[in-house]
Amino acid sequence: MELLLSNFSPAKLEKRSFKDFFSIQLSECNLLRIASGYISAESLVDLKNVIEINGGPKVELMIGMHYFDGFTKGQLNAAIELNDFLLKSSMGFVSVSIASKFHGKMYSFIKFDNTINSVIGSSNLGSILNSIEKLYEADLLVSGKLAEDINTRIIDLTKKLAVNIDDLNNFKIIEENDLLSGNEGVERVSKAELLTILNNLLELSFDIPVKSEPKSNMNVFFGKGRKSPLNGYIMPRSWYEVEIIVSKSITSVSKYPINQEFYVVTDDGWKFKCKTSGTFSKNFRSSNDLKILGKWIKGRLENSGALKVGERVDSEILKKYGRDYITLTATSIPEVWFLDYKS
Amino acid sequence: MELLLSNFSPAKLEKRSFKDFFSIQLSECNLLRIASGYISAESLVDLKNVIEINGGPKVELMIGMHYFDGFTKGQLNAAIELNDFLLKSSMGFVSVSIASKFHGKMYSFIKFDNTINSVIGSSNLGSILNSIEKLYEADLLVSGKLAEDINTRIIDLTKKLAVNIDDLNNFKIIEENDLLSGNEGVERVSKAELLTILNNLLELSFDIPVKSEPKSNMNVFFGKGRKSPLNGYIMPRSWYEVEIIVSKSITSVSKYPINQEFYVVTDDGWKFKCKTSGTFSKNFRSSNDLKILGKWIKGRLENSGALKVGERVDSEILKKYGRDYITLTATSIPEVWFLDYKS
Repeated sequence: MELLLSNFSPAKLEKRSFKDFFSIQLSECNLLRIASGYISAESLVDLKNVIEINGGPKVELMIGMHYFDGFTKGQLNAAIELNDFLLKSSMGFVSVSIASKFHGKMYSFIKFDNTINSVIGSSNLGSILNSIEKLYEADLLVSGKLAEDINTRIIDLTKKLAVNIDDLNNFKIIEENDLLSGNEGVERVSKAELLTILNNLLELSFDIPVKSEPKSNMNVFFGKGRKSPLNGYIMPRSWYEVEIIVSKSITSVSKYPINQEFYVVTDDGWKFKCKTSGTFSKNFRSSNDLKILGKWIKGRLENSGALKVGERVDSEILKKYGRDYITLTATSIPEVWFLDYKS
Repeated sequence: MELLLSNFSPAKLEKRSFKDFFSIQLSECNLLRIASGYISAESLVDLKNVIEINGGPKVELMIGMHYFDGFTKGQLNAAIELNDFLLKSSMGFVSVSIASKFHGKMYSFIKFDNTINSVIGSSNLGSILNSIEKLYEADLLVSGKLAEDINTRIIDLTKKLAVNIDDLNNFKIIEENDLLSGNEGVERVSKAELLTILNNLLELSFDIPVKSEPKSNMNVFFGKGRKSPLNGYIMPRSWYEVEIIVSKSITSVSKYPINQEFYVVTDDGWKFKCKTSGTFSKNFRSSNDLKILGKWIKGRLENSGALKVGERVDSEILKKYGRDYITLTATSIPEVWFLDYKS
């Protein structure tokens, strides 16, 4: 029995979080049973990616709340694609609770030798797989008889409450949430503030290409990932991980922000820290988390309908969106730049 | 160790739910420590009421998410009033996490003899105290060393993440959610549907007074409550519990729906089942749950600013709202009545 806490500063209290435990167990178990009230599109895409690359574990997932509260298009597509993949490869399924709003969060990790670890607590699937939103979660890890009971209950609940997502249609579709709302280190700026920025733009401005080659930094999701030295299990990069590589022809222009950290205010009213680093200051990324800049760019492609979650960014998609570069413009406000990707 | 599941049909799987366990423990424990991601206004008002009436238990509550996601006015008022009451009576406090979005749900029940039961899982406070929304929750009840550890962690988390709600100002205030959104047995009707109803109203119509006497059925919250035969602990009625008592002069009018069950569609676009019953068919209530009709009436008083959560409904409040009766009008659609409380 072990209490799993997120351990974010200033409350570093336990040995490890559920997220830590999850990333180890994923590579060590044969079958993962999940009953999660909520899911995020990116967590399903990331889950599919990691089990596709590694050939396991099997996954049986019940989604508890979305049939009633609604799916975003991205969530629904990701759930259907994960289900298709699991069914075709005989590796599990995705089911949806239709009899009751299931708000619980239960996980069972069944190993090759049939030992079971289970976790119950506050973590929805989105919280333990590469989420941008930093939620402090509290879960309990159990083993032995109780872990088996939880596993049995996930099976029972799935049987009693849910049906395969394939057997449903007429889903309640809800609008995408605000792109970066609720993310750590991201602020919404008011219209007045945004207007102030727009009234204080300087001449200094850089058009930075959003690259669309198969192996560009928009597509690290499809890259090699990180291999565990212990058991060779590969953890691919997350769907929203993006780092822009800026060519020397741009970074060498006088007054390009070389190896600096600064705020960007975006054309759609977000504010977050970015930094430039590396040889010739070629890397351009969001400071706290690569996924913030990534979600800002890929999320806009998604919301416009040009990009589907889990799809490779190519020139066709950028064409559909109508813009293949972001524009970084200096302002007269110290350490604040304006970042534009309006299509 | 015991798995607590909500046990809603068709998934009646365990002996009892956390809600069942909570109502027993509340009367048996000396101190209740809570760290809950989310709270509802009515759960705080109901909690204050029950401990005020019974003189216990003490309560130390940390609210995890609302400082970041925002409070509704009702939630904030209820939290501040609970804190005031607890501080003044030296019975505990309400704190708010400001260092991190705390999404966990942890509860410790400390008894007079210092034995501790703790619960960890998916239940926010709103789910275990008289909620209207039916969420299927999954929690784990533990005792012994682990229960003590969870208790210690609630104390630690409160210290590290939170401050007393009194020490804060400039709260992020969010709009009330849709009045009855997400409640079991309640549907939203479309504008077109509402228009159809309005175009099919019949002459038959009843103005039913919303009574404002101190002991009226709008104010059962302040009534005697239900006394436990075991230990005399009193469970007062919930804030939104309302049953309209209709006078004989109305129910005796020809074609008043005597002892019937029917749908009401409301002027603000909700649809739910109501029924009339009792001597002379004097009772008018929502079918599945008294709290639905109650929330529809009291919620509108609250949203207009006329009524504060936890306050007695009197003639002054109804005057402020601008209407002291609801109107029940027959329609030409079978078993559907129109219910109006527009101010």
